[in-house]
Amino acid sequence: MSLRARALRESAWAANLALAGGGLVTGTFGNVSAADRRAGLFAIKPSGVPYADLTPDHMVLVSLDTGEVVEGDLRPSSDTPTHLELYRAFPCGGVAHTHSEFATALAQARLPVRCMGTTHADFFRGDVPVTRELTREEVAGEYERNTGLVIVEAFADAGISPEEVAAVLVANHGPFTWGADGHEAVTRSEMLEVLARMECTILAIAPDAPRPARHLVDRHFLRKHGSDAYYGQG
Amino acid sequence: MSLRARALRESAWAANLALAGGGLVTGTFGNVSAADRRAGLFAIKPSGVPYADLTPDHMVLVSLDTGEVVEGDLRPSSDTPTHLELYRAFPCGGVAHTHSEFATALAQARLPVRCMGTTHADFFRGDVPVTRELTREEVAGEYERNTGLVIVEAFADAGISPEEVAAVLVANHGPFTWGADGHEAVTRSEMLEVLARMECTILAIAPDAPRPARHLVDRHFLRKHGSDAYYGQG
Amino acid sequence: MSLRARALRESAWAANLALAGGGLVTGTFGNVSAADRRAGLFAIKPSGVPYADLTPDHMVLVSLDTGEVVEGDLRPSSDTPTHLELYRAFPCGGVAHTHSEFATALAQARLPVRCMGTTHADFFRGDVPVTRELTREEVAGEYERNTGLVIVEAFADAGISPEEVAAVLVANHGPFTWGADGHEAVTRSEMLEVLARMECTILAIAPDAPRPARHLVDRHFLRKHGSDAYYGQG
Amino acid sequence: MSLRARALRESAWAANLALAGGGLVTGTFGNVSAADRRAGLFAIKPSGVPYADLTPDHMVLVSLDTGEVVEGDLRPSSDTPTHLELYRAFPCGGVAHTHSEFATALAQARLPVRCMGTTHADFFRGDVPVTRELTREEVAGEYERNTGLVIVEAFADAGISPEEVAAVLVANHGPFTWGADGHEAVTRSEMLEVLARMECTILAIAPDAPRPARHLVDRHFLRKHGSDAYYGQG
Repeated sequence: MSLRARALRESAWAANLALAGGGLVTGTFGNVSAADRRAGLFAIKPSGVPYADLTPDHMVLVSLDTGEVVEGDLRPSSDTPTHLELYRAFPCGGVAHTHSEFATALAQARLPVRCMGTTHADFFRGDVPVTRELTREEVAGEYERNTGLVIVEAFADAGISPEEVAAVLVANHGPFTWGADGHEAVTRSEMLEVLARMECTILAIAPDAPRPARHLVDRHFLRKHGSDAYYGQG
Repeated sequence: MSLRARALRESAWAANLALAGGGLVTGTFGNVSAADRRAGLFAIKPSGVPYADLTPDHMVLVSLDTGEVVEGDLRPSSDTPTHLELYRAFPCGGVAHTHSEFATALAQARLPVRCMGTTHADFFRGDVPVTRELTREEVAGEYERNTGLVIVEAFADAGISPEEVAAVLVANHGPFTWGADGHEAVTRSEMLEVLARMECTILAIAPDAPRPARHLVDRHFLRKHGSDAYYGQG
Repeated sequence: MSLRARALRESAWAANLALAGGGLVTGTFGNVSAADRRAGLFAIKPSGVPYADLTPDHMVLVSLDTGEVVEGDLRPSSDTPTHLELYRAFPCGGVAHTHSEFATALAQARLPVRCMGTTHADFFRGDVPVTRELTREEVAGEYERNTGLVIVEAFADAGISPEEVAAVLVANHGPFTWGADGHEAVTRSEMLEVLARMECTILAIAPDAPRPARHLVDRHFLRKHGSDAYYGQG
Repeated sequence: MSLRARALRESAWAANLALAGGGLVTGTFGNVSAADRRAGLFAIKPSGVPYADLTPDHMVLVSLDTGEVVEGDLRPSSDTPTHLELYRAFPCGGVAHTHSEFATALAQARLPVRCMGTTHADFFRGDVPVTRELTREEVAGEYERNTGLVIVEAFADAGISPEEVAAVLVANHGPFTWGADGHEAVTRSEMLEVLARMECTILAIAPDAPRPARHLVDRHFLRKHGSDAYYGQG
């Protein structure tokens, strides 16, 4: 397992650096994890360590089964239980969390990132939802785990596919995104921030602008994703 | 034709790099083409290739007559049929397409970039229009070609000269610009984004501000363009 | 005292450079001081000297007791009496003042930076208040000292702990922050600006958005601060 | 005169580079001039030359008396007659003109940059006014000269001192600033843009916020300017 663990640490480390390099990070906010489902593990950023100081050895290995730390000298991100619940419920290999400015502003306003055009539809097939508020009991108890459960609930209740919309805003907190690996999760965090910035602009200048037709959204999502995709060199 | 084809590839390649260098690009969004009308060809960015990896050899040569790929190992941009329709209808030698943030936000709000002052009039003689929505049939059919046809329709219906206003917003999609060559098309995309940012600001703070007088717009457009231009060292 | 004075100068100098490096400074606006309470001194930026020219020797040493300059060839920041009053009233070892854009815009609008989510609660346990206007007499008299007294009054009147909310907006002026040392004061100025930007966005798009529950704010503040903190590697 | 002319060209050239370096310039927009009143001359940027290509030799020398080109191979900025009228009416040694984004947005909205706080009052003693629209005749005639005359009229009609408020917004056009030399004019253009950005934010979130008291504005302006100034190391 040692080689696979090393590869997983490096993958998670590189994705964390990409997150910081993409300008989505203030201070030590944010974290990325990457999972190896065959090995039953995910690697995650340690808590409160500056991005500039990170090395692959700092990544903490956590069991996908028990949520316990398997390997690592440092305490894992305090958001680790949220990542764990997302891995349990969603078919993904990487999770990213940021406090990026405009996605967080929408989360604080408890507003979704509405799908208003093809830029959005190229990445997410519909609105990026915002969760409900956590209850007093959920906050007092296993707060970070409950954050994950509330995300999963939001997708189940609204019947949204986590593969078609691989992003969420947690109310009064911030965004989480996921993907095939940590790198894709980070790319989606970057894209979500761009979309959130545009949504904030539209809300300021034309809050009642008409939504794009469903067939336009589907066309763009499906020209990049799925079996009939014709974008790129695939 | 080999030397001309090479020059055309290099011109299109350089214009694509300028687009990325100008900060208008997120991920692999956007594309620029350059035409050689005597040779009956245009060169365009391949689909989904990161800008940092592009070389002149990656550019795909397309026939202005048939729209078929004439030379190139990669699949051309999925927006190629849109470029083709613009070359067919408008007297230009370069076309640029971006998802630049504020022009796209206005396109998503289905609002034009109104001409509100001399900065705009120095480049475009009047409002940059927004197209109508595509119909379900237009989206289901030759979607990218129909995007081009809807642009041409917008100019014809409103009686706008594509030489005086060399830019458009496609509803719920984003901007296209054109010019004498790929470089000029890119410069106009950059300028359009600046104008779109200012328009979003004005819509947020003073949506009912009075428009500039037509004679001011004409004076500025004509001091830079046309036979009596006196700006620059011409 | 010479070695301690030297260390204090260097600490204040480094914090001033961090302030400028963090992008919060326009021209010569802003200043940071650092205190050595055992030595009864604080070191502060000289007035009107460009950040790029600063050296530790330029820092001016001021008595925490009398407010008089103890050592230094240059005139201290004109805001020195404000720093002094903050050191007298609040248990801190560093003070930072900026005219950072969005915190200043809110100060000019006489609006607080409301606590709207966990990003804020990780740093400040509740709204960052805005002071009352200074009276004509307060402006005509010891203006900079009165600015400090009005800050202290704002915290006393509203029953806000300066340790839980280590930041303020002075009406029609700008922000002050404080912390254990100059470095922490600067970090809080940077964070305050991020929070102010998000607050301006929310006010533009959803001014009536619901506030986060008190238990969420407390949970986030206390997971980073206080005896039960579990964030970081402490 | 040759040495003085050389010094004047270099001073104007350096100020133009500072303008471009400060991020206020898009394309070839903007221009700075510097005057030598004893020599009866000012030096100004040539029309339409990219900033990156400028050398001191490109600067064009113009007579303060006649407005004629005295020395220089290139055509001077098309805005030269505006600069000339400002030199004639206002006691200054440098003039800068930009299309900086937020000052231009306000000019397009025909709104002044209101003095809302001490950041503004440190530089300008009161609102930065916006001119009236030019008439059809003024635009058809000596347009650029009339732009200058309309600026001068705005200050005369409102009784504003061009030394206390060394900046203006030309309606539907953009800002002009002036100062002791080209460098100070550029610094004021940079500061004006910062103030315009804050004003746009306030107009979006709190358009009816109370104005600061006159005594606060005066205190800040006078602590930096005039015989009793106590800011800086003067």
